[in-house]
Amino acid sequence: MKRIITISREFGSGGREIGKKLAEALDVPFYDNEIISRAAKESGFAESAFERAEEKATNSLLYSIALGMNVFANQETGLTGLSLDDKVFLAQSNEVRKAAKESSCVIVGHCADYILSDMPNVINIFIRAGLDFRMNRAIQEYKIPVEKAAEEVLKNDKRRANYYKYHAGDRWANMNNYHLSLRSDFGGTDHAVKTILTYLNMEER
Amino acid sequence: MKRIITISREFGSGGREIGKKLAEALDVPFYDNEIISRAAKESGFAESAFERAEEKATNSLLYSIALGMNVFANQETGLTGLSLDDKVFLAQSNEVRKAAKESSCVIVGHCADYILSDMPNVINIFIRAGLDFRMNRAIQEYKIPVEKAAEEVLKNDKRRANYYKYHAGDRWANMNNYHLSLRSDFGGTDHAVKTILTYLNMEER
Repeated sequence: MKRIITISREFGSGGREIGKKLAEALDVPFYDNEIISRAAKESGFAESAFERAEEKATNSLLYSIALGMNVFANQETGLTGLSLDDKVFLAQSNEVRKAAKESSCVIVGHCADYILSDMPNVINIFIRAGLDFRMNRAIQEYKIPVEKAAEEVLKNDKRRANYYKYHAGDRWANMNNYHLSLRSDFGGTDHAVKTILTYLNMEER
Repeated sequence: MKRIITISREFGSGGREIGKKLAEALDVPFYDNEIISRAAKESGFAESAFERAEEKATNSLLYSIALGMNVFANQETGLTGLSLDDKVFLAQSNEVRKAAKESSCVIVGHCADYILSDMPNVINIFIRAGLDFRMNRAIQEYKIPVEKAAEEVLKNDKRRANYYKYHAGDRWANMNNYHLSLRSDFGGTDHAVKTILTYLNMEER
């Protein structure tokens, strides 16, 4: 059975790692920065603009009206008033939808739960953890200096919340948007994958 | 290992049933209305007052200052200004804490996650489901007439939110307060129990 699994996550919660392990366990494609690169290539934008975009929330705009229209296939639709960030978001949205249509997969970030809210067989998961756990991961995985770890973790959460609020028009981490939400610091990332597999009724391949 | 599992739930989500099945699977005590009865007997209040109290949020009061003081063992502490509802809540809180100190157990409702927030080995779970699923349960389990099902479900959610806000001083269903939150309509109550057991790293006895 086809299943699209979206993973949203607090910064440093291990959500990306959990998504990757989950995709490996299920033997399905994993999308994270890969999507960004694909979108960048297909839409002709510089990759650096795409890399900058996700963690940044900007001002303005009724991009949601345009959502679903393939703006990038037809630059003459009159939607040239879109900001660069909105265009990047639209290109990413197209890639997310394309990936979801193709096959079962795991998609981390990119407001995928919102972008795919009209599609069947989408399961939305949110990963959280206590601040200590996330600071430790920030120090070890992202090489953030110890004295800046707390600030960076909270700043990145804030960015994600702003990004989600701006693009999806909803409060980030709103429990109503997720089938399953769990703290990864209770048992670690492998344990989180195990719990998610149980919830999905899916076995490792 | 001792584990106290608290279950909060949207009305009609099957949270109470899930809690009962979980307690059976783990062979530990299950507390729901049992707590209310015990509290009622020990504190000398009429049971009917207790039964009325949980789903009702009232006005006023710094009962939280008194929380932890055994008000009912000593009626002469000067806390006679407490409303009946506050006294009922305090009596319930004492019972919840007593149960949690005694042994591993499953506690449904009663703001148990809040009442036990200073205790170790407490795992907080929140059960949700879509409105259709909950309306069906309301009709079948609680014999609520079809035409009133939606209204009753939403009214009861509102009451629980008010009750939690009043007593715990926090937004109900705030994801940050729970280790695990899941939709029960994805796979039913047995499936939810299975997922929780996996998350807890605990086997059925």
